[in-house]
Amino acid sequence: MPAKARTDRNAATRTSILDAAERLFAEHGVHEVSNRQVADAAGQGNTAVVGYHFGTKTDLVRALVRRHSEAIERTREEMLARVAGSDDLRDWLDCLVRPTFDHLASLGSPTWYARFGAQVMTDPALREILVDESLGSPVLLRILDGLHACLPELPAAVRRERGDVGRHLLVHVPAERERALAEGAPTTRATWAAAASGLVDVLVGVWLAPVTPAPDH
Amino acid sequence: MPAKARTDRNAATRTSILDAAERLFAEHGVHEVSNRQVADAAGQGNTAVVGYHFGTKTDLVRALVRRHSEAIERTREEMLARVAGSDDLRDWLDCLVRPTFDHLASLGSPTWYARFGAQVMTDPALREILVDESLGSPVLLRILDGLHACLPELPAAVRRERGDVGRHLLVHVPAERERALAEGAPTTRATWAAAASGLVDVLVGVWLAPVTPAPDH
Repeated sequence: MPAKARTDRNAATRTSILDAAERLFAEHGVHEVSNRQVADAAGQGNTAVVGYHFGTKTDLVRALVRRHSEAIERTREEMLARVAGSDDLRDWLDCLVRPTFDHLASLGSPTWYARFGAQVMTDPALREILVDESLGSPVLLRILDGLHACLPELPAAVRRERGDVGRHLLVHVPAERERALAEGAPTTRATWAAAASGLVDVLVGVWLAPVTPAPDH
Repeated sequence: MPAKARTDRNAATRTSILDAAERLFAEHGVHEVSNRQVADAAGQGNTAVVGYHFGTKTDLVRALVRRHSEAIERTREEMLARVAGSDDLRDWLDCLVRPTFDHLASLGSPTWYARFGAQVMTDPALREILVDESLGSPVLLRILDGLHACLPELPAAVRRERGDVGRHLLVHVPAERERALAEGAPTTRATWAAAASGLVDVLVGVWLAPVTPAPDH
């Protein structure tokens, strides 16, 4: 086989494995799905093909994260360039929320990435992959700096607590919307863009919520 | 064996099965744990003992939910009696948040119920059990009525969206705190009571957040 044809065939095989893994991981859980099931769903007779192209399951998860995080990161960078210097909290929250929601919209329907991402984010071992590939990006850190500069003085514990709530919602709100779409269940908003607006509003509320002295700390 | 001794032994067996199941479900996932593993962890030689005392896995999950929901429901009822007629949003949010957090505090450390509950809440099939046992309670519905009466006019989609966010945080914030405690990881607040105050603040923010017209609905 000529080198070009071999490269094309390899690329097609890799894509079919990634597609199958993403769907199975989203629907059944990353830990529940074996290489054999991925190979079968990808139409590959040989189970070893998954390991041959992607190494361990961790490597496969990393490849899945990477094929989305690059596009999301690009949008983030463009949005950051537009809002630099803004003192409007909503601008910075837009930079956090919209790149992922826009990316999901661009994938058409159905998508699996939001449900897959929610698992990766909640699993202590897999989360390290997200940190490497995406959560530690300099662009994201600059967005968080811009966001923090718009906030009122907050006790450190409150700031951490609201950061946790924000991160949680950024991952689980799109995952729940994706699940509802996949199951044909009703969604509160008709589009990803409208859902992003709703989440930005909620996050403005979270960050500007009153701070009541707790009974103890 | 006299009837009294037999009843006592049955009660002790049931408790040991419930304790083992709750811990294993919290740590490994409801779907991952077999009756055999529950029986082993409960120190029961005979796997059939789980089925004998609790029927199917769904019945076992229901028994676990029930042994906590009764205490939580009692606190909710007491708090409702105290705030009836209030037009302070925070009072109603206290009724939603504190009974669960107080219950977790009363269990000592470690607890497993919050992580178990988060799974039951997220699993479409198991969620029905929570609806039967707890989410459909008349006390809870009266609290939600009181809460809604304190809110500004909100478009229906926004109200549903914020209700979803609130329910999500009510389940996942305590589950994450419980996980951090179990792993010896730092928590943002030192006590369940302080964590409850923080969540009530966040939920005030969520409900009173601005409403921006979405690009489309």
